[in-house]
Amino acid sequence: MKKGVMRPGHIQLRVLDMAKALEHYVELLGLIEVDRDERGRVYLKGWTEVDKFSVVLREADEAGMDFMAFKVLDEATLGRLTEELVAFGCMVESIPAGELKGCGRRIRFSAPTGHRFELFAEKEQTGKWGIAEINPEAWPRGLKGMRATRFDHALLYGDNLPDTLRLFTEVLGFDLAEQVVDPHGNRVAQFLTCSMKAHDVAFIQHGEPGKLHHASFFLETWDDVLRAADLISMTNTSIDIGPTRHGLTHGKTIYFFDPSGNRNEVFCGGDYHYPDHPPVTWTAAELGKAIFYHDRELNERFLTVLT
Amino acid sequence: MKKGVMRPGHIQLRVLDMAKALEHYVELLGLIEVDRDERGRVYLKGWTEVDKFSVVLREADEAGMDFMAFKVLDEATLGRLTEELVAFGCMVESIPAGELKGCGRRIRFSAPTGHRFELFAEKEQTGKWGIAEINPEAWPRGLKGMRATRFDHALLYGDNLPDTLRLFTEVLGFDLAEQVVDPHGNRVAQFLTCSMKAHDVAFIQHGEPGKLHHASFFLETWDDVLRAADLISMTNTSIDIGPTRHGLTHGKTIYFFDPSGNRNEVFCGGDYHYPDHPPVTWTAAELGKAIFYHDRELNERFLTVLT
Amino acid sequence: MKKGVMRPGHIQLRVLDMAKALEHYVELLGLIEVDRDERGRVYLKGWTEVDKFSVVLREADEAGMDFMAFKVLDEATLGRLTEELVAFGCMVESIPAGELKGCGRRIRFSAPTGHRFELFAEKEQTGKWGIAEINPEAWPRGLKGMRATRFDHALLYGDNLPDTLRLFTEVLGFDLAEQVVDPHGNRVAQFLTCSMKAHDVAFIQHGEPGKLHHASFFLETWDDVLRAADLISMTNTSIDIGPTRHGLTHGKTIYFFDPSGNRNEVFCGGDYHYPDHPPVTWTAAELGKAIFYHDRELNERFLTVLT
Amino acid sequence: MKKGVMRPGHIQLRVLDMAKALEHYVELLGLIEVDRDERGRVYLKGWTEVDKFSVVLREADEAGMDFMAFKVLDEATLGRLTEELVAFGCMVESIPAGELKGCGRRIRFSAPTGHRFELFAEKEQTGKWGIAEINPEAWPRGLKGMRATRFDHALLYGDNLPDTLRLFTEVLGFDLAEQVVDPHGNRVAQFLTCSMKAHDVAFIQHGEPGKLHHASFFLETWDDVLRAADLISMTNTSIDIGPTRHGLTHGKTIYFFDPSGNRNEVFCGGDYHYPDHPPVTWTAAELGKAIFYHDRELNERFLTVLT
Repeated sequence: MKKGVMRPGHIQLRVLDMAKALEHYVELLGLIEVDRDERGRVYLKGWTEVDKFSVVLREADEAGMDFMAFKVLDEATLGRLTEELVAFGCMVESIPAGELKGCGRRIRFSAPTGHRFELFAEKEQTGKWGIAEINPEAWPRGLKGMRATRFDHALLYGDNLPDTLRLFTEVLGFDLAEQVVDPHGNRVAQFLTCSMKAHDVAFIQHGEPGKLHHASFFLETWDDVLRAADLISMTNTSIDIGPTRHGLTHGKTIYFFDPSGNRNEVFCGGDYHYPDHPPVTWTAAELGKAIFYHDRELNERFLTVLT
Repeated sequence: MKKGVMRPGHIQLRVLDMAKALEHYVELLGLIEVDRDERGRVYLKGWTEVDKFSVVLREADEAGMDFMAFKVLDEATLGRLTEELVAFGCMVESIPAGELKGCGRRIRFSAPTGHRFELFAEKEQTGKWGIAEINPEAWPRGLKGMRATRFDHALLYGDNLPDTLRLFTEVLGFDLAEQVVDPHGNRVAQFLTCSMKAHDVAFIQHGEPGKLHHASFFLETWDDVLRAADLISMTNTSIDIGPTRHGLTHGKTIYFFDPSGNRNEVFCGGDYHYPDHPPVTWTAAELGKAIFYHDRELNERFLTVLT
Repeated sequence: MKKGVMRPGHIQLRVLDMAKALEHYVELLGLIEVDRDERGRVYLKGWTEVDKFSVVLREADEAGMDFMAFKVLDEATLGRLTEELVAFGCMVESIPAGELKGCGRRIRFSAPTGHRFELFAEKEQTGKWGIAEINPEAWPRGLKGMRATRFDHALLYGDNLPDTLRLFTEVLGFDLAEQVVDPHGNRVAQFLTCSMKAHDVAFIQHGEPGKLHHASFFLETWDDVLRAADLISMTNTSIDIGPTRHGLTHGKTIYFFDPSGNRNEVFCGGDYHYPDHPPVTWTAAELGKAIFYHDRELNERFLTVLT
Repeated sequence: MKKGVMRPGHIQLRVLDMAKALEHYVELLGLIEVDRDERGRVYLKGWTEVDKFSVVLREADEAGMDFMAFKVLDEATLGRLTEELVAFGCMVESIPAGELKGCGRRIRFSAPTGHRFELFAEKEQTGKWGIAEINPEAWPRGLKGMRATRFDHALLYGDNLPDTLRLFTEVLGFDLAEQVVDPHGNRVAQFLTCSMKAHDVAFIQHGEPGKLHHASFFLETWDDVLRAADLISMTNTSIDIGPTRHGLTHGKTIYFFDPSGNRNEVFCGGDYHYPDHPPVTWTAAELGKAIFYHDRELNERFLTVLT
């Protein structure tokens, strides 16, 4: 948090059918529906998240990610980062408070990879879901499905990783936590963090800009990953791969698809990062193991199925 | 244990290179080497097994299973079952005590699937490995690799499942615990138990007789299955599939290959069976899910790579 | 299962207030209510149990166990064991079919420890709860609380352990799986099994006859034991001890009390037993560690709070 | 990390007998011995820690903590914080680089609770133990005992919590993550973080200044907590309490003592914290549950056995 960017604050996903999407994100993943707005968007969160929401679903003709936002420390930080983004050369747009219900003003900009990001400082804090503020129990009864605890990060595919790295590290104060480097020294994957997590956002080099590989949600244990896998089968949900482990970050994971074709991940564990840690490096020759630590080879889907 | 057959007692596996095999079964799976004989065979066991050995490795030009043996209650049972096997029409051969070190006399017969089985009543009891007989600790320090606890069962491919079922249930007192039935009512997989386990031996219908699909070893937890998966990667061992769950038995599992190409499984959990339980039935239409509960489709290897 | 006794079939417990008891056994333990009878008794089962019920609650002025029953292979077995019980010197009473709904005729006898036991051969089989008979999923959605999978065993306090051992081994075909022996060679605890489990019923030497120490229910994992512990706190249920491990059986466990003061256990894991295994022996000097493996000392409650 | 303080960097503990202490911290906890110095101090670390060491053992006549240090971002931060500490009224002492082998210069100061703390910016980075820097495996083979991953935090007992809170929040940029408040509004426990962890250091109100309650080490899973508990028994190590969960932080934990009487904790899980999160508050009336979530009562040892 060198520059005051704290964490992923929300992600807005496009879904083709809201009812099916809610069946997926609420009944299967176990996110909590917290609000809806007049535009038909539905607001969700994981139960451990203190802020009002972290996932916004918008019905649209095409799946994918509208934008991903990070919460910053305060309004002063937001102002300072706006200036630095402009100085870096970004087009910065201001979205008024309330455009997302309960969220303060946001500034929006595009990364060189073609993805839209936002920063904001204020969001209504409704507290962890289902447990008291004073003397809180360990977890709430009544959670559904996978019991996802929080929106954790997104993996995005796009072009121009070097400039995007500069933007995130120099302007926004992220660290390069993990990377994949090809034999020519080019970085083909970069995992960026503004916290102790191994990634708050990650990018993989790809010809087409602005694509979403997956939105990821955190679980508590490897037993919960198994439970997620079981539920994927029970609900006849499209699975991608897993349960398995990643080489990068060493998280324990499973990938699957929402009814619109957006890839989801639920995972647990994973390495921690501090700002003085050198980046963890995998070589492109070991890319298969870097991504799927047990199978040690990529499936075609991982590189081509995007939204 | 309706007829006095207690459990799988040992399996003799053919390996192409003994040194590599021991690296695999001792260092990776964590079996304990307990003895060798003048024929060059090496005797192993899982640490929880009270009898002296449960796995015998024999160096040969071709991988596969020589035979699998069951321990019966006592010599009287052995005598009675010999008679019944003969009455059933089996050729029964007697192997003198000591042919396997520490093992009493064995009777050997072939099942209609083309696999050789043995029964025996006596084997030297050396106790659980690494813990005291009086006031035993929960587990021994010094276990290696996957810390496999016991040889659990084998899955065998061959022809003539109906007669094999009759042999195992009518003569040997096994129950049919789980099965896969095709639309014509033919049983294409039969999982047989002489205990509370969902399978002590299992058969899948296959044109070629006498083939080994895998030898399976028991782990304690799903965390141990992950640990096994990690070790498979770290040692660059050939993986088949997993970590995953089976639909049949609902065990949590990973498949991989020994250096000779014999498939191994390590797994935990799984359903329990009692003699009054009706068999659990899967339909052939759901065979993929029956075998690999999460992926819900078979890989080609599962049906064709045998030893 | 040397003599045809398969497993614990049911336990009838006395509770002081049925509504509170159901809140405990259904909402907290997660047993399924399956029926009630005209005497006001309520029938419960764990979700993996194929038979109709395994726990019967009866409202009474005093807590404790009315009787514990074992299911035997068939009516012929029931007849033969009746004769043997009489020959052993037991008073045997016959309870007609239907006295417990869905249960065939039972024979009832008292053990020298003062506990009433029953045998029966027939009980309506309703199948595992919440999953299909064909192509069954790994577990049902909608389980409550601790999601106890089955009634597993009871630990009983009473006098005259040697005769009780003879009754259970010689007449009923149980094995002595584990024991605690004092310096004079007296057995002060005996754990008896008719299956692969480390205990289907257990006895501890005690001056007063016919007391219940605890009724025990099986969980799948150590994570489930933690979840049970959390739920005990969340519901302000009286805890005894745990989460911890036993030295005897090495099961992972937690003890707590129902609203009537009957002690319950939920546990996972534990050693397996075969008929040829010598009994596992703990010395009375290590009784604390035998019971509570981590604390290595008994609490006073363990020895004195009984129903 | 509002003011550039990143994490706990090391703790120096006094032990009565170095050989016994190493048996405990290396063989049982599984810390790695990395160096010794001419003063006889021994340097240890957890395997995931990138810096050279995190625990220093010093043989002395009395157990306890000499000091605990935090690593800051860089030398500029160290300089700035020195000034602020002096301005706050702390006596600040400078320790030259190399006084601890591989560590840069440290500044030392006392907190109002009577504990000595240090800040430093430079320490030799030797990387995670036992895995390659490029394409790192998930974990190293050859870890011992509990396989503690890192020194995580310390809980300290002393007086004057309000001034200590001001020092840590205003000068060092920590957040108050969790607290226990008595009916008069006095804070009797304060858990402070400079990261996403629920505590990097914690204080409990106590009459005597400068006491150590425990030094805590991080494990990966609840299964690892069980393994730690088992090892505590196997090695006849003095246990305090556990396995259990805390109410505060909700971490899963076990407490035990080193041979000198210093209390250790190993734990996993626990809540995460961000700077905008309000502190989690427990009331003193629920102090038992706040500390030991399952037992819901303190043992006397927790409040009185300190070093």
